[in-house]
Amino acid sequence: VTRQPAQSGEDALIAALAARLSVPRHTRLAIGDDAAAIALPGGELLLVTTDMLMEGVHFRTEWADPASLGWKALAQNVSDIAAMGGTPTHAVIALALPAGWAAERCAGVYDGLREMAEVAHVDVVGGDTIRSVGPLTLSITVLGRVAEGEMLTRAGARPGDAIYVTGTLGRAAAGLRLLQNGRPVPLDLGAAVEAQHRPQPRLAAGRALARSGVVSAMMDLSDGLATDLHRLCRASGVGAVVERGRLPVDPVVIAACDWLAMAGATPDPVDLALTGGEDFELLFTAPPDAEETLRVAIGDLPITCVGRITAGADVVLVGITGVAPLPWGFTHF
Amino acid sequence: VTRQPAQSGEDALIAALAARLSVPRHTRLAIGDDAAAIALPGGELLLVTTDMLMEGVHFRTEWADPASLGWKALAQNVSDIAAMGGTPTHAVIALALPAGWAAERCAGVYDGLREMAEVAHVDVVGGDTIRSVGPLTLSITVLGRVAEGEMLTRAGARPGDAIYVTGTLGRAAAGLRLLQNGRPVPLDLGAAVEAQHRPQPRLAAGRALARSGVVSAMMDLSDGLATDLHRLCRASGVGAVVERGRLPVDPVVIAACDWLAMAGATPDPVDLALTGGEDFELLFTAPPDAEETLRVAIGDLPITCVGRITAGADVVLVGITGVAPLPWGFTHF
Repeated sequence: VTRQPAQSGEDALIAALAARLSVPRHTRLAIGDDAAAIALPGGELLLVTTDMLMEGVHFRTEWADPASLGWKALAQNVSDIAAMGGTPTHAVIALALPAGWAAERCAGVYDGLREMAEVAHVDVVGGDTIRSVGPLTLSITVLGRVAEGEMLTRAGARPGDAIYVTGTLGRAAAGLRLLQNGRPVPLDLGAAVEAQHRPQPRLAAGRALARSGVVSAMMDLSDGLATDLHRLCRASGVGAVVERGRLPVDPVVIAACDWLAMAGATPDPVDLALTGGEDFELLFTAPPDAEETLRVAIGDLPITCVGRITAGADVVLVGITGVAPLPWGFTHF
Repeated sequence: VTRQPAQSGEDALIAALAARLSVPRHTRLAIGDDAAAIALPGGELLLVTTDMLMEGVHFRTEWADPASLGWKALAQNVSDIAAMGGTPTHAVIALALPAGWAAERCAGVYDGLREMAEVAHVDVVGGDTIRSVGPLTLSITVLGRVAEGEMLTRAGARPGDAIYVTGTLGRAAAGLRLLQNGRPVPLDLGAAVEAQHRPQPRLAAGRALARSGVVSAMMDLSDGLATDLHRLCRASGVGAVVERGRLPVDPVVIAACDWLAMAGATPDPVDLALTGGEDFELLFTAPPDAEETLRVAIGDLPITCVGRITAGADVVLVGITGVAPLPWGFTHF
């Protein structure tokens, strides 16, 4: 885990490796967005996304039961399809199970996968199961569909567009801090732990925003606003101003930070909301006069304008103490 | 690595885990064949296959250069599409690179992936690259297409059908034994090492056999005839008789065994051909009067009849010393 000012090591590595692969032919969108898109007969696009999760890199089994691991691994791929405005349809799941794991724990992972598959209406059509000589590793590929004219990508944000997020931020990160703290978590902070273990991909919101016709760019918040907004801006060739005071920090995040402060830790609620990641909310942009259209499209789910897209390449955070570059947040490298 | 008489541990685990997942809805073929099949608009089927490979389970970096690892990982997924009679089109690649690997070695893996992608005309459209805290792990998903009426599966073999394999058997296993031996490999045995490092999926043969209209069941030989014929017979609800004397043991396998015998090892060429695996030849069945049609369809590639399908469930090997159950061969569990 490192913090880097300009570009994460993971993004740089992916870019370098992508350059070594062949140029796609019948492909609309390849490496670099939440999912790839392939033209199907009849005007639809096939969406494909894949993620690999490894114990000790992305999760620890001390903090998560097997069923939550299965749920979350599939949920983050489903979220990638939601981020394109698509509908997930099928999944294939490769699983390396540590040799020491009992059958019951292995089955628990599959139970969590099945629960998420049912929630997302995804058919698990295949997979590969091996005995791991290393850590528990899950690699999931999810397929989805979207009408050609409705697909949303990270590119397309224009200067002047408003920047929105769905829901609230920081819950999953607060949940992780509570688990790391090790002490029994008070009942009223359970929502944070639940958000860390069982994230809810924004499928209906993603579809509604794609159909609204006013969204210019969209992605999901897997690594935190501080990292993901940089990615959206880079893909769109724009900059951004984020207003610290507008961030929809979840109330449970503030309560969790208060409780953790009593335990001697000092996480900051706004830091968790900005850099914590794993909220799997949607980050999207739209012209400033489209807010009413957005609210009608999305229904009950709250959306919050957190800033605006600017010309140039700078991504900055505005707070009561002034303006500063938004630090590129948490990455896995 | 174990040998089991009735069913491999891997197959049993996959069956148990598959039972925990949801019943597919718009899916033609799910867990249990070389690939899953999903109906597309316009009468075509989308094929999906996934495989996970882990250092220390499926390969050792002492014996294979990074480019060969990349090539082989993609080739075995491409072979699964060939086994359905399909054409591969796209791939997504998840890669966990050990923290200690230099950029050059990482790039080598991608170079091998690209070379295989070019040979198979596959677009690599996405992926996920992480730093591994354990062994090198590759998880690849390949998509392909096949006309609905042309898809071949493991089910469909009928009593009386002849059993065929393409090409020759045992080369990849002989190559592995040579590498394990550790001494410099004589030049005239290089084809065995090449077969172990750079397997050639039988794409053209798979398509030709699917179009021939006479093949009743097909799969690829990834784990060796002794294991894979059991799987085909189970899927078809039939038995089989294999004639030991008819197995197309590659001449280089016999030469490699002779050389290894001088070095004190005693592998048997027929054993390697039966149980060694990784040949990625096609195993298929057809009525006994269809051989001329098959030979015309497949062109220059040799095919060999190695036995016949029987009623019942027994899979037996006939040799000069009599008849014995064909042992369920090498598995990863």
